[in-house]
Amino acid sequence: MTDVIPQSHQDLLTASGFLHMASLGPEGEPQVHPVWYDWDGSHLLVSSTGARQKTKNVERDGRVAGSILDPENPYRYVEVRGVVETVDPDPTGTLIHQLAKKYLDQDRYPWEDDNSDRVIVRIRIQKANTMG
Amino acid sequence: MTDVIPQSHQDLLTASGFLHMASLGPEGEPQVHPVWYDWDGSHLLVSSTGARQKTKNVERDGRVAGSILDPENPYRYVEVRGVVETVDPDPTGTLIHQLAKKYLDQDRYPWEDDNSDRVIVRIRIQKANTMG
Repeated sequence: MTDVIPQSHQDLLTASGFLHMASLGPEGEPQVHPVWYDWDGSHLLVSSTGARQKTKNVERDGRVAGSILDPENPYRYVEVRGVVETVDPDPTGTLIHQLAKKYLDQDRYPWEDDNSDRVIVRIRIQKANTMG
Repeated sequence: MTDVIPQSHQDLLTASGFLHMASLGPEGEPQVHPVWYDWDGSHLLVSSTGARQKTKNVERDGRVAGSILDPENPYRYVEVRGVVETVDPDPTGTLIHQLAKKYLDQDRYPWEDDNSDRVIVRIRIQKANTMG
């Protein structure tokens, strides 16, 4: 686990709330996208596609931030800041299927068949603030 | 109402979910804060204090973004981008009490007595993407 996030809030790393992920657009402006996420023991993992704005953003400037809410209690959350360390191809959609299992309890992501453009975004958390 | 947000999602402007508000830190890095918000018919309103990071951020660079989730359905939301037009003193805490009414059904904000440093942040929405 990361020692950046206090023990009291580490459960949120594997909870099934949304990560509201902020990245920087072409002019350095903030953009926010609610996304599914997973935690691999050291990094936050987000599934995206090469074509999407948030992927282009983090390839241009890896600085990101996000808030993760307790799905049971919106007044308990962690705000994180970090950096995208890698954006790797995921043409079989390994991560999106894993997230479909986590969030929907389905073995495959039901809303898309073609995973050829899928990527895995790995975020290292550098700072965290907790609330609640 | 704003015509930037499609009719189908304008209800979210007055719903009682969180606004996950992104602003830019001193180095231009993104930061995200879940906040209460209100809608005055033309602007999103956020209560902050002069001392808080997000206030300093938007006074330095007014570009902000946010996601507003339907509190009843996290797969229905609107992502907005916009600009902070004004940051005005609110020493009697008008807005924070109004938000306490909206979110907690209480006439006064229960967690703070001293409102002398309170400010009202007014955000003009320039772009919106909807989901769900």
